Amino acid sequence: SRSLNLAVIPGDGIGQEVVAEGLKVLSAVLPQDVKLETKEFDFGARRYHATGETLTDADLDALKAHDAILLGAIGDPSVPSGVLERGFLLKLRFAFDHHVNLRPSKLLPGVATPLAGQPEIDFVVVREGTEGPYTGNGGTIRKGTEHEVATEVSVNTAYGVERVVRDAFARAQARPRKKLTLVHKNNVLTFAGHLWTNVFNKVAAEYPEVTTDYIHVDAATIFLVTDPARFDVIVTDNLFGDIITDLAAAVSGGIGVAASGNINPSGDFPSMFEPVHGSAPDIAGQGKADPTATVLSVALLLRHLGHEDEAVRIEEAVSADLGERGGLPARSTSEIGDALAVRVAG
Amino acid sequence: SRSLNLAVIPGDGIGQEVVAEGLKVLSAVLPQDVKLETKEFDFGARRYHATGETLTDADLDALKAHDAILLGAIGDPSVPSGVLERGFLLKLRFAFDHHVNLRPSKLLPGVATPLAGQPEIDFVVVREGTEGPYTGNGGTIRKGTEHEVATEVSVNTAYGVERVVRDAFARAQARPRKKLTLVHKNNVLTFAGHLWTNVFNKVAAEYPEVTTDYIHVDAATIFLVTDPARFDVIVTDNLFGDIITDLAAAVSGGIGVAASGNINPSGDFPSMFEPVHGSAPDIAGQGKADPTATVLSVALLLRHLGHEDEAVRIEEAVSADLGERGGLPARSTSEIGDALAVRVAG
Ligand SMILES: CC(C)[C@H](C(=O)O)[C@@H](O)C(=O)O
Ligand SMILES: CC(C)[C@H](C(=O)O)[C@@H](O)C(=O)O
Repeated sequence: SRSLNLAVIPGDGIGQEVVAEGLKVLSAVLPQDVKLETKEFDFGARRYHATGETLTDADLDALKAHDAILLGAIGDPSVPSGVLERGFLLKLRFAFDHHVNLRPSKLLPGVATPLAGQPEIDFVVVREGTEGPYTGNGGTIRKGTEHEVATEVSVNTAYGVERVVRDAFARAQARPRKKLTLVHKNNVLTFAGHLWTNVFNKVAAEYPEVTTDYIHVDAATIFLVTDPARFDVIVTDNLFGDIITDLAAAVSGGIGVAASGNINPSGDFPSMFEPVHGSAPDIAGQGKADPTATVLSVALLLRHLGHEDEAVRIEEAVSADLGERGGLPARSTSEIGDALAVRVAG
Repeated sequence: SRSLNLAVIPGDGIGQEVVAEGLKVLSAVLPQDVKLETKEFDFGARRYHATGETLTDADLDALKAHDAILLGAIGDPSVPSGVLERGFLLKLRFAFDHHVNLRPSKLLPGVATPLAGQPEIDFVVVREGTEGPYTGNGGTIRKGTEHEVATEVSVNTAYGVERVVRDAFARAQARPRKKLTLVHKNNVLTFAGHLWTNVFNKVAAEYPEVTTDYIHVDAATIFLVTDPARFDVIVTDNLFGDIITDLAAAVSGGIGVAASGNINPSGDFPSMFEPVHGSAPDIAGQGKADPTATVLSVALLLRHLGHEDEAVRIEEAVSADLGERGGLPARSTSEIGDALAVRVAG
């Protein structure tokens, strides 16, 4: 019999609530012969306040022993900005070499969008996850004085760019429209821009069926609101990807339904799946959070582990559920989870 | 009698057409006793192809002798990406220390927005113009090999951050809502983020009437499409400002109406005013370009030089013109310019 050995990190705020629903749906969708084993980890603000730790080497070893990781949300106003982000979220992405940060955007029927009309939106952003301005390179001199200088260094390597660009081409090739857009700012960030553009063009030669184009990140934000249908697959750097995927989530139904995967395609380390939203402390513990983004992240997790049929069942259940939501009274976090669990089981 | 000594850079593509209309409206609005003198400069793609030059020291000296600069657009597909951007646009911003990059966003009555409903949008972005990832610091090693490393260094100084933050506070103080939002990514870019946040909080203490808040750049793109009314004045770094002002332009009527000023408040060097849009070579020479963004940039120019009444007259003319546009047949570049010139003169 097969098994799925899952590390679960509920984290802070609404993380607890949405992860519970994600697991509910996961249990309901898994075939009988797949044995689900979960181990919960207490990372986040409480552990940080109690112990001063965010993510130790022993934690990394413990996490490593799993097939995948499901994360709710990490972050709380009681912790200074950057401590949990750099000390946990980014540390984990870097330690497990999660270089493919996968963020699909699909406007499902019946879902509200801030855009006029009901534009077609169905694209995937492949965001680089281990380089760019996220490496923590840089520093400060003369801190706190009027002569302070602070630098941030964006580090881009041919190795790091090529592997994520290849991943994006493979994904574009597998989709009906077979279109890949490189988003960067190569007219200003010319050093990194040339590297990205050259690698992109080199790999493009191996994918003659994939249509390619390039747009600057500033122009990309315009197209995301005026013509999102122009996008199929986007590949971009870590920071640009961070920015445009929040915008992409906003136009395609909001961060309540935006899923993501921090993927290491090599399998050397477990990949991690999480909703794009944060811990939303203002609504935590009230059963108000929408668990849909977490449930869709579970679908990405299943697809990554080869359970394609189950991933599709979840996505269809979410689609059907959202399609029926309009006009209905608001449901609680667990009511939505229950409804999805029934659908995927049935 | 007073004089206005203007350097005019039509530039490439539609730059020529829109600048002609901007000057038409400028001539019409100026009081009789202000003598307008213009000198045209041929910067851009043609000059680059003919001479290999983008902006020489002699050019800078010649430009310096003017009260202000009006720019159309620079850029053409025949020139490799980055050559004119770094060699002309950014070179000029840096040489003349244009550290306040001012980009107002106002959704005028009757103007189409991609957002559903007709949200209220009336905010100003104060984008830092001489630091951040735009300095050209960085480099490449092992270029073109599989071991290439390319870096981009974001440089942030207390001096550079404080002067633009002060400018933004003064602008917020002068507006009815008196609200200033800092946009950064201080949870990831912690070196630069701490500098920006500390300087912002320090200056805030001097402006007790100004309400302040902070949001991450990724979240800012969400609010720009879901709740743009939350913004009054935004201050942000060079790259974040580049990205969010294109999005801001898109939601508030498109880049056809988005104006900008590259301002050196000290007056040591002339400030430069330009539409946010580019040279749009695909529609150049056809009379299809909307000169409104250039005309509104002329208003910013006049305001900067102390001609507040004339600036307001232009803004009111544009507002009235746009309000009447809906349903009318499309007009040519010069027809729009003519209509605005008549309105400001009347
Ligand atoms: C919380 C933060 C470190 C993170 C990021 O910037 O990557 C978040 O915004 C995201 O997009 O996952
Ligand atoms: C053309 C380019 C150099 C410029 C920038 O990035 O600043 C443009 O996008 C702008 O916003 O003025």
